[in-house]
Amino acid sequence: MLEVTRPTLLLNKEISVSNIKKLKNKVDKYNIVLRPHFKTHQSIEVGKWYKDEGIDKITVSSVSMAKYFSESWDDIMIAFPINILEIDTLNSISKRCKISILVDNFSVLDYLDKNLLERVNVFIKIDVGYKRAGIVYDNFSDIDDIISFCSKSKFLFFKGFVSHFGNTYKSMGKKEIISSYNQSLNKLKDLNDLFPNYEISIGDTPSSSLVNNFPSFISEIRPGNFVFYDLFQNHIGSCEIKDIAVRMICPIVSVYRDRGEVLIYGGSVHFSKDYIDQNKNKCFGYAYRFEDLWKERQKKGYIKSLSQEHGIISVDNIENYKVGDLLVIIPVHSCLTVDKMRSFFVDQEKFSIMSY
Amino acid sequence: MLEVTRPTLLLNKEISVSNIKKLKNKVDKYNIVLRPHFKTHQSIEVGKWYKDEGIDKITVSSVSMAKYFSESWDDIMIAFPINILEIDTLNSISKRCKISILVDNFSVLDYLDKNLLERVNVFIKIDVGYKRAGIVYDNFSDIDDIISFCSKSKFLFFKGFVSHFGNTYKSMGKKEIISSYNQSLNKLKDLNDLFPNYEISIGDTPSSSLVNNFPSFISEIRPGNFVFYDLFQNHIGSCEIKDIAVRMICPIVSVYRDRGEVLIYGGSVHFSKDYIDQNKNKCFGYAYRFEDLWKERQKKGYIKSLSQEHGIISVDNIENYKVGDLLVIIPVHSCLTVDKMRSFFVDQEKFSIMSY
Repeated sequence: MLEVTRPTLLLNKEISVSNIKKLKNKVDKYNIVLRPHFKTHQSIEVGKWYKDEGIDKITVSSVSMAKYFSESWDDIMIAFPINILEIDTLNSISKRCKISILVDNFSVLDYLDKNLLERVNVFIKIDVGYKRAGIVYDNFSDIDDIISFCSKSKFLFFKGFVSHFGNTYKSMGKKEIISSYNQSLNKLKDLNDLFPNYEISIGDTPSSSLVNNFPSFISEIRPGNFVFYDLFQNHIGSCEIKDIAVRMICPIVSVYRDRGEVLIYGGSVHFSKDYIDQNKNKCFGYAYRFEDLWKERQKKGYIKSLSQEHGIISVDNIENYKVGDLLVIIPVHSCLTVDKMRSFFVDQEKFSIMSY
Repeated sequence: MLEVTRPTLLLNKEISVSNIKKLKNKVDKYNIVLRPHFKTHQSIEVGKWYKDEGIDKITVSSVSMAKYFSESWDDIMIAFPINILEIDTLNSISKRCKISILVDNFSVLDYLDKNLLERVNVFIKIDVGYKRAGIVYDNFSDIDDIISFCSKSKFLFFKGFVSHFGNTYKSMGKKEIISSYNQSLNKLKDLNDLFPNYEISIGDTPSSSLVNNFPSFISEIRPGNFVFYDLFQNHIGSCEIKDIAVRMICPIVSVYRDRGEVLIYGGSVHFSKDYIDQNKNKCFGYAYRFEDLWKERQKKGYIKSLSQEHGIISVDNIENYKVGDLLVIIPVHSCLTVDKMRSFFVDQEKFSIMSY
């Protein structure tokens, strides 16, 4: 057994692989490509688990992440409006790898056309209401301009549309998530009616997990978080606790009997600061006893506050805890926890994530 | 000039050193030791700037951070209730270095007494109302028990009391911060009246920055953030914008004229998720034009939302921005931004922070 003396992130391969298989089986039925987002794990080794399931296309969130994974993958979408300042890196990876980039404004096209050295696939990022990135779905004239520009370009090969249904993360429960998904989907349907000959790529973890019916105009989905899930996804209804593949192990460093709280060595530099609302209080993670690791039990407490290295956990039955015990925590946001921790353990083996 | 193509953290040495000098000069007048907290920068190189100002004692927040700095410092306080699971590391560093540990419960003493191999200084962590860690200031019987245990121990040398006035961070403006400081101080005064022969160590950045009058029973202060400051400290009134020594530089990857927003490459994996309230909206950082770097200008926008790699900035005069421009951001919480970024630039030189 791994000796834990400090905050340590564990990953359960069996659960992860089961999450991958489940989704892969589902999309296979609809002839849809699963192009998983690798920002969640940032790990070459975890990537191999996808390969074992026959997945050969991936999504990343930055040019540097594309570079990192281009050593072992040859079809990568950089799902972030292309950062033209990284043109040299982009050129170096598109030599050895099929790269898809996202564009959501006309102004980058001329620069790309003049400075690219290899052909890249171009997708227009479409905003269906999340208002983060993208051209608004019914701005047909801007979309037309981009397609038209690409048709004359040597290096920009227009392939289709990409959208992220970010509003599903703001939904609560299966019904709301599916309703939010359908609203977004209808907007893409309009787009597809006007531009029918192109690919359409969607894919957030909540809808990918809950939807069992994909229309035929969808070519691929790109969820990332589903491989690990987390407390946030459980909170909004995307997954069960048993589907969550990550746990943080943290030592108890103090016990405060009068206030029913224990102090763990484990803070915002380990977990990040995302939280869920729990009876109007912030909750930064569920806590379990170490002997309940990976078991389906009722939580024994929750993280009520985090500072840089401190976590305060409110527990039931304070008399059961003592300094030096280890607690098991389900983090709120697995992607950020992985990014913070930079490495995790699968059984005894340490996997490090990409470094910049 | 440094070529910036991705989110990049800059540190201004001149401002940092001026912040150190200012505080050192102030505490020297009161014959108080400045034992700066190194969790803010986690850097051997920045540590040298303190040495140049005659500082020879430091504070850290974990046993591993103590180990990291024990290569170049020989008087280190681990300002976190001691994690007994790291006893081996503790023993290895206390061989070559004067180590002070914090204790806030009796239960660890027996273990420490039996397992320590070198003498360590012991401070009792006192809770003066923040309710994070510590023995409540008027729990004289628990305090007495710990002192009494240490007096018979070969390795546990009782030195005094440590408190963190965390409530000053919840204050708004100089008046509230000083009032919060005075309330906390009065509780320590009571303690000092009963146990007059021991050191008392305090020190948060807000009160260290604003208070100009330290009572004689205070031995040392341990602020950390003051070396860089940040938007949060400016927001509550601890510092001026001109005192903030860190800036993130982020490329603009898209411009949304209709909503007056630009998208930067820079998200929660770079900034962390701390925010300040600004007219009831969350603000994750102030934005400036690149040519205004280190200048005292009005902000040109602010980060209104952050996801993993995306930052949405609401700007005045959207027509002034284009894709490929660089924006300058003052982060909300410099400690977490440094921890996220793992390195920063001082002029052309790259400083990496500790790794685990």
